[in-house]
Amino acid sequence: MTAWKEIDQHVKVWMNYARKLILAQIKTDVQVSTKSGPNDLVTNVDKEIEEYYVKQIKLFFPNSLILGEEGHKDSGMLKHQGYFWVIDPIDGTMNFVKEQENFASMIAIYYNGKPLLGYIYDVMKDKLFWGGPACQAVYCNNEKLNSPANLSLKDGLFGASCPMVLRNYRGINEVISKSSGARIVGSAGIEFINVMSGKLCAYLSFLRPWDYLPGKILAETLGLIVKTIDGEPVNVLSSTDVLVATDNAQSEIFKIINNY
Amino acid sequence: MTAWKEIDQHVKVWMNYARKLILAQIKTDVQVSTKSGPNDLVTNVDKEIEEYYVKQIKLFFPNSLILGEEGHKDSGMLKHQGYFWVIDPIDGTMNFVKEQENFASMIAIYYNGKPLLGYIYDVMKDKLFWGGPACQAVYCNNEKLNSPANLSLKDGLFGASCPMVLRNYRGINEVISKSSGARIVGSAGIEFINVMSGKLCAYLSFLRPWDYLPGKILAETLGLIVKTIDGEPVNVLSSTDVLVATDNAQSEIFKIINNY
Repeated sequence: MTAWKEIDQHVKVWMNYARKLILAQIKTDVQVSTKSGPNDLVTNVDKEIEEYYVKQIKLFFPNSLILGEEGHKDSGMLKHQGYFWVIDPIDGTMNFVKEQENFASMIAIYYNGKPLLGYIYDVMKDKLFWGGPACQAVYCNNEKLNSPANLSLKDGLFGASCPMVLRNYRGINEVISKSSGARIVGSAGIEFINVMSGKLCAYLSFLRPWDYLPGKILAETLGLIVKTIDGEPVNVLSSTDVLVATDNAQSEIFKIINNY
Repeated sequence: MTAWKEIDQHVKVWMNYARKLILAQIKTDVQVSTKSGPNDLVTNVDKEIEEYYVKQIKLFFPNSLILGEEGHKDSGMLKHQGYFWVIDPIDGTMNFVKEQENFASMIAIYYNGKPLLGYIYDVMKDKLFWGGPACQAVYCNNEKLNSPANLSLKDGLFGASCPMVLRNYRGINEVISKSSGARIVGSAGIEFINVMSGKLCAYLSFLRPWDYLPGKILAETLGLIVKTIDGEPVNVLSSTDVLVATDNAQSEIFKIINNY
């Protein structure tokens, strides 16, 4: 096994390159197309960064398996002895296109099926959140994060998902009405950052592995709860509802949902 | 009448001072109390900045009338011959307290009952949006803004209000489902900035005069529509639902609401 610091050095170089690529193209050279529907976007920049990450991983860590949002998919990841990588070149592509902010580039790294390191890069703010079991800590750039306060639902803002709110999924609107209010950002990566920073007490959305694995590795390192809305463990590599929350908010939300 | 540039110079000095005060106190010295309910917050910083703005206005423009969010209220404003000022020391106090970002300091200036200048200062990003009929333009710091593209609802993100979404106010959730998605920021000032910058096609919320007048002056200068949800003119100094939108989005939203 390669020393984690060596992996970390590589990843930071790659993400720095991805940022430069994004900044160079964001104002002038973004070609947008749709995937599953009109609000599921992909751009040439998403694809270019995924290809770049995949190429670098294969070059420096040749025995790796990789799952990427924009199509790269190796099989047998969970049973793989060695590294597997889950990459989301741009999380929040809609924001990338419409807002030119509030999106993130993300990477999760597992070794022998166990979480090792997670990376969420808020590109426009130039804030890289990284860490995990490998270093038993989470950093924002070079600054070590403290675990956030164990906020109750009533004392915290709730990070919501637009589709869930519109159909009051599992009674989520009652959860929101008992919080300090809802915020909708539109990027799982940024919402994970906001829970880890104590700006939100919780965030709930239906997510795919590349949306939540980097955040899950980081949030759990800080002692936050990452489970399904029913309080079940999130099975790595499944698409599911994912709740990241403080311990207090998680148990309050679980009660409200179960009584709904 | 004082030349608008002289007023503008004063206001920018005051807002710069307010920013310094906020940055000095945000991490260490914020005492929070509630107003109408648990989610209606005010802090010592809100009060201190309002007092400072009022003192400066009275000092340099002694014949002014002033309405402030945190309690300063002169009467007879609409019939007043001379200046009236509407000030919101911190718009988005909940975000100021919980997020330490996504809030704004705001000022609207009227002369003989007519709009003159508006100011929305995104303090943490150090971006001051200012302008109005006095200079027939809107600037972000020193850069002149172009009018945003006339986005349709389906091509734009929709800035929503949490309480309205929770009770599907006037069918707003159907409006959202026909947009590119909802975002909830929790500060009217920041949402006005986002519509003016083309990040949103529309923003709707129930607002008080200090929440919307600075943005109304700026948005109308850029050719955006600022009306009630029923397409009626917003009466200055009333509390009402306020929709700021592109021309296209406004007429589409109006149709959806009217058929609901």
